[in-house]
Amino acid sequence: MPGDGGSHGEEDVTALGAPTGAAVLTAVEQSQVDAQWRAANYLAACQIYLMDNPLLTEPLKPEHIKPRLLGHWGTSPGLNFVYAHLNRTIVRRDLRALFVTGPGHGGPALYAHTWLEGSYSEAWPEVSYDEAGLRKLCRQFSFPGGVPSHVAPQVPGSIHEGGELGYSLAHAYGAAFDNPHLLVACVVGDGEAETGPLAASWHSGKFLDPVRDGAVLPILHLNGYKIANPTVLSRISQTELDELLRGYGYAPKYVEGDDPAVLHQVMAAALDVALDEIDGIQVRARSLGHMRDRPRWPMIVLRTPKGWTGPSFVDGKPVEGTWRSHQVPIPDARKNPEHLLQLEEWLRSYRPETLFDSDGRPSDEVTALIPRGGRRMGSSPHANGGLTLRPLNLPRVSAHAVAAVRPGSAVAEPTRVLGRYLRDVFSLNRKAVNFRLFGPDETASNRLDAVFEVTAKTWTEEIEPTDENLAPGGRVMEVLSEHLCQGWLEGYLLSGRHGLFSCYEAFVHIIDSMLNQHVKWLKVHQGIPWRRPVASLNYLLTSHVWRQDHNGFSHQDPGFVDHVANKSAEVVRVYFPPDANTLLHVAEHCLKSRDYVNVIVAGKNDSPVWLDDEEAAVHCARGVGIWDWASTHTEREPDVVLACAGDAPTLEVLAAAKLLRELLPEVAVRVVNVVDLMRLQPAAEHPHGMGDREFDALFTADRPVIFAYHGYPWLIHRLAYRRTNHDNFHVRGYIEHGTTTTPFDMLVRNSMDRFQFVIDVIDRVPGLLARAGIARQRMADAQERHRRWIVEEGEDLPEIREWAWES
Amino acid sequence: MPGDGGSHGEEDVTALGAPTGAAVLTAVEQSQVDAQWRAANYLAACQIYLMDNPLLTEPLKPEHIKPRLLGHWGTSPGLNFVYAHLNRTIVRRDLRALFVTGPGHGGPALYAHTWLEGSYSEAWPEVSYDEAGLRKLCRQFSFPGGVPSHVAPQVPGSIHEGGELGYSLAHAYGAAFDNPHLLVACVVGDGEAETGPLAASWHSGKFLDPVRDGAVLPILHLNGYKIANPTVLSRISQTELDELLRGYGYAPKYVEGDDPAVLHQVMAAALDVALDEIDGIQVRARSLGHMRDRPRWPMIVLRTPKGWTGPSFVDGKPVEGTWRSHQVPIPDARKNPEHLLQLEEWLRSYRPETLFDSDGRPSDEVTALIPRGGRRMGSSPHANGGLTLRPLNLPRVSAHAVAAVRPGSAVAEPTRVLGRYLRDVFSLNRKAVNFRLFGPDETASNRLDAVFEVTAKTWTEEIEPTDENLAPGGRVMEVLSEHLCQGWLEGYLLSGRHGLFSCYEAFVHIIDSMLNQHVKWLKVHQGIPWRRPVASLNYLLTSHVWRQDHNGFSHQDPGFVDHVANKSAEVVRVYFPPDANTLLHVAEHCLKSRDYVNVIVAGKNDSPVWLDDEEAAVHCARGVGIWDWASTHTEREPDVVLACAGDAPTLEVLAAAKLLRELLPEVAVRVVNVVDLMRLQPAAEHPHGMGDREFDALFTADRPVIFAYHGYPWLIHRLAYRRTNHDNFHVRGYIEHGTTTTPFDMLVRNSMDRFQFVIDVIDRVPGLLARAGIARQRMADAQERHRRWIVEEGEDLPEIREWAWES
Repeated sequence: MPGDGGSHGEEDVTALGAPTGAAVLTAVEQSQVDAQWRAANYLAACQIYLMDNPLLTEPLKPEHIKPRLLGHWGTSPGLNFVYAHLNRTIVRRDLRALFVTGPGHGGPALYAHTWLEGSYSEAWPEVSYDEAGLRKLCRQFSFPGGVPSHVAPQVPGSIHEGGELGYSLAHAYGAAFDNPHLLVACVVGDGEAETGPLAASWHSGKFLDPVRDGAVLPILHLNGYKIANPTVLSRISQTELDELLRGYGYAPKYVEGDDPAVLHQVMAAALDVALDEIDGIQVRARSLGHMRDRPRWPMIVLRTPKGWTGPSFVDGKPVEGTWRSHQVPIPDARKNPEHLLQLEEWLRSYRPETLFDSDGRPSDEVTALIPRGGRRMGSSPHANGGLTLRPLNLPRVSAHAVAAVRPGSAVAEPTRVLGRYLRDVFSLNRKAVNFRLFGPDETASNRLDAVFEVTAKTWTEEIEPTDENLAPGGRVMEVLSEHLCQGWLEGYLLSGRHGLFSCYEAFVHIIDSMLNQHVKWLKVHQGIPWRRPVASLNYLLTSHVWRQDHNGFSHQDPGFVDHVANKSAEVVRVYFPPDANTLLHVAEHCLKSRDYVNVIVAGKNDSPVWLDDEEAAVHCARGVGIWDWASTHTEREPDVVLACAGDAPTLEVLAAAKLLRELLPEVAVRVVNVVDLMRLQPAAEHPHGMGDREFDALFTADRPVIFAYHGYPWLIHRLAYRRTNHDNFHVRGYIEHGTTTTPFDMLVRNSMDRFQFVIDVIDRVPGLLARAGIARQRMADAQERHRRWIVEEGEDLPEIREWAWES
Repeated sequence: MPGDGGSHGEEDVTALGAPTGAAVLTAVEQSQVDAQWRAANYLAACQIYLMDNPLLTEPLKPEHIKPRLLGHWGTSPGLNFVYAHLNRTIVRRDLRALFVTGPGHGGPALYAHTWLEGSYSEAWPEVSYDEAGLRKLCRQFSFPGGVPSHVAPQVPGSIHEGGELGYSLAHAYGAAFDNPHLLVACVVGDGEAETGPLAASWHSGKFLDPVRDGAVLPILHLNGYKIANPTVLSRISQTELDELLRGYGYAPKYVEGDDPAVLHQVMAAALDVALDEIDGIQVRARSLGHMRDRPRWPMIVLRTPKGWTGPSFVDGKPVEGTWRSHQVPIPDARKNPEHLLQLEEWLRSYRPETLFDSDGRPSDEVTALIPRGGRRMGSSPHANGGLTLRPLNLPRVSAHAVAAVRPGSAVAEPTRVLGRYLRDVFSLNRKAVNFRLFGPDETASNRLDAVFEVTAKTWTEEIEPTDENLAPGGRVMEVLSEHLCQGWLEGYLLSGRHGLFSCYEAFVHIIDSMLNQHVKWLKVHQGIPWRRPVASLNYLLTSHVWRQDHNGFSHQDPGFVDHVANKSAEVVRVYFPPDANTLLHVAEHCLKSRDYVNVIVAGKNDSPVWLDDEEAAVHCARGVGIWDWASTHTEREPDVVLACAGDAPTLEVLAAAKLLRELLPEVAVRVVNVVDLMRLQPAAEHPHGMGDREFDALFTADRPVIFAYHGYPWLIHRLAYRRTNHDNFHVRGYIEHGTTTTPFDMLVRNSMDRFQFVIDVIDRVPGLLARAGIARQRMADAQERHRRWIVEEGEDLPEIREWAWES
């Protein structure tokens, strides 16, 4: 805004606490940083354009140019600038640093820099550290059979793809937690900065403990434009921007301009100041052994032109410094000779002959300020988390299992039991400091609060006398943002640690899209030989659709499982433990597993324990099984199969089985419980999938199957439609009939109640209806009695509340 | 933080620009506002606890207490405080105001206030404006068969449920756009303020034009606690908070304390200052006719105790002012006589006998400062958008349709054609100013840029010479936040206007959870007699999975349709127009429709036009149909059905049909195209669903069906598993094999290419394999030739690029 400090010229560079411009780089250093930067810019541009002639040893010809010009130039020079300057700082200070590329579409920059530092050729020897490798590096980029245009798992040193914007800063903080000696530099694009998740992520600094965590250095890169628009943060006044970033808790340093000679000095100085400040914060806190006041962490605001050093004008239109440089600044270079010429001029402007020797290796000047070995950001072990991953010490499940002499003889709150197990996970791994629990303000509400016996919730603000379980060093991360929980956890896992995200079932949809990206990451990661397995991303979905007593319809959505089931079978696993003991065994399995996304859906309310420890272990290992103790006439083929997946459905199915035993003792009922949902898929579709013979043995080839499922019923059809007996599957589930009401009323509204199941059996077992009319009527009457009772009394029928398997 | 101005005492109230405390309320007014507030607080508490005795005409007895105590007290008194003060301001200034309840779980407050003002009884006559009505009001709350605990559609005056936190402010801005005389007051809870979407929403002020839009007054309510934790914004220093809010572009006024007598004055003064500032901004801008500089809009920060005026201690533990007051502050009041007594004491502390007359009607003092008629926030026509909705003037589709003499004779970019149609929608509704286009920076990228001939993108910051199509009054809303686009659009629609959200297909998952909430809202809304139909929420998903040439795997996800298909059939519709002309007809239909969520998936790249205008109209009306011109031997039952849904699948199916015609002319091929995906469902499951007879007529009862589907293949199975011929359905689709590659290579990687379909036909038509071995081998060879070509040449085979239906 006019008159409001909004000018972006160089005269503003020092206006707001930036360094004073006294040269911090010697002339030699500046030349070295600049050479590194030019080499990376050159290679970034080459990757977008060239199939051949990567050193420009001959004049550019059309056949050197790729037929399809793809990739993003605009952000690349800025990324290269930051990377080169970080390299200098790492060398000078011997830092352990990680680079998180918010503008992940700037793949060309990261391929270029990791190749220059040698990390790329070590990871991918076929892209060698010479001219032949350079040719491959260029040709493979965005080329069929080559590498993606983004900072994908193929890029060494990355834990962040950045194709979907918004998560860079959360990932950076996730990596910094419990890594006290790590610096995570995170470039946030000004496009990304408009997203909600990123806007919330700035507050992550309030969850960072300077004693035990590493540091995050956010670098907000204002290059001014998105695909086709200016960005919000690049156009507000400098005053407002500064207020905003200070309001988020940072001390910003400004690096602004377009003259490389000036900017090199300013950037180097800003980095030095920022690193000094971080050092000061950490030394102070660590010498005390605890944080006093939440520190004001430094950050950098880098304002440079989009497509910096690229062509200024193309076809008479301004390109450098505008949104037109976002992707390919000079189009059609293969067929348009003028464009070809302009491209060659542009590429030669980096003076490649001074940057590479005749074998294609970077010159000494280029590599002078590149770190060595594991200090290279492309070779950081923290970016290949499996390298540093230590298995968790897990408590014995039997020490936590609920004693259950007979099915249903004990009652427990499953998540409360799990909470005690997780408490011991914290205790047993206290020294390794490699496990955290994440959740949006719901650890206690989800009844996992036993963990607070041994740890606290991370909190670096003021703590008041009435507060409970807050501490800067707490290992339970609560913030009312599913995005932050997910982003932090992803960063924590990919940098080699373990975690669990507990969430209200309905609201985990908030991170549907983040789940997509993480699954895609893991799928690709699994196929990369040098990437080591990382701990799985574990979800505990509780406060689920059937128990939203306080909240109602907006809190009722079991569809996350459907979303997950669409993703790659190599990665996703879904569990419905029916009671506390099975929950323990499933949790143990998930915490031991690697490279998966595990979704566990479990209740928090008091419910019967069906299986003792040993039975639960066997049942969970099988993933699905017949419960003989609940079945009748087990010596013969059943007349009907009652199947169930989920705790509420299991309870209702068992109640129905008991009713059937009393009402229609001659009917042979088989109860099948499904813990591992993916077992229902064909073996060819999912690694956990059952063969057809096994499936038929459980569900029969021709008997009616009443399937009570926790979520949307059609998921069961979609998993089982190829099975022999599928036409006889009748699935009940949540059909979006919700409101604020009692637990049993929710079941009745969705035809998921015990009475309905008995009716379903009578209606579907051939010949039964004729002789069971009275029983059927009794069930319909019971439903009706419920309907009348509930609106009068406001609570469930006494017979429902007092029901027990054993009576 | 200590010493940093973080104290919350009253002495700070005026520290940061708040009014100076000169009394603005007369003693009478103060007493009236207080009476209104007390009455609302009393009724809020009564709703949580009482089944009977709502006026406390007799001592409280256990049988007056509900058996299940459900609801959220903590936020209610703060909401009531704001509502009462807004009421006074509305009366004094004759404002048109809307109330958006961020903490939507504070349903008791909104039920209370809308009842007090009479809006509730007008909407729901059975809850009358007397003691009987009061009894119902209390009893129905969170009671089976009653009303939900949240600010659901049942609450008059609401456009926002608030069960899922994060969207209040975006909804508020959406309602304010193009409503120049409306004030939207939006309470943002400090819990909600931690979410990403809300954090981004503060920037919405930068997209508000003071000339043509109304005003939003955000009221950040710092009551200090979430479910079990302090909130971030309530614990940072006042300085930091002020910087943050100023950095977001606001001028905050602080209202802080816990003494009602003081706070009434401070709040009244703050509101007066804020309203004066808004008035000043609007008068200035409107007298000029345009905005000069983006104004600094006022906002209020209200810091009051959680559960204010509720019990201070329960069972010896502090409740008021802590998270313990979040839900039910005194538990177990029915069975615990001490608690019952404490409850009665608490309720009587509001002096109900002074608030209601013996008939249960509010006293004159309570109603003195309540607005009348349509000025009541519970009766605002803007909160029942259908009341003010004007149908769009729509251009004639035929004026935009692409001339197509024969199928495939013309080529067009479908979204570009739609862009010209949308341009005319803008023009034709210029006066009504009731249509906007929303999208995250992608209008041009999605090739809808013809709209910029008649309007611009909303932009209130500085505009530089190189910028294009930016203006404060632009009607295209672009911001790199799907959350904001969705939230603004929802607010815009629910307040009675029209819109379209164009989005990259993969990233629309970002708003999965918002979609859930909007569909739930619409489902309930459809069943409420006094809620009038509103315009549908229309999505255009483009830049879809098959055309991510620049971006690759992270940008490839067609699963939003699966997510949508899980939602209530009464609300959701999904369309796959196969070409430009069908896209026009589908768009016209969607823009005319009401109360739905319409998802349109369409490409932006050059592709053949299959149907002329008239044919397209008929095909879209039917939703699915046989394309005789692409089929062979139409006089007899087909040997095989080639079905397709989506533009890329349609092209491949037609290419396969052409290959079959050449290679195996004796095979009778039927081509079926599906535009309206929900037609595949059974008629009983979805209003668009086909009857079995019609389905069988299209897909036959027993012939192989090769179904080429745009998205994840199993969705087709899930929609069609009950059909006669389902066992013969062989569905191809996206199976998560993605990367940066050519369009045709994407198809081959996912077995979605023309050659594969011919192979599928040969493999599945009984007896064909034996005589078509050579043709099959030719197809396999063609796939292999593609594979070799693509990694050598980097572009698709010439025969693919040059393919045409007519040759």
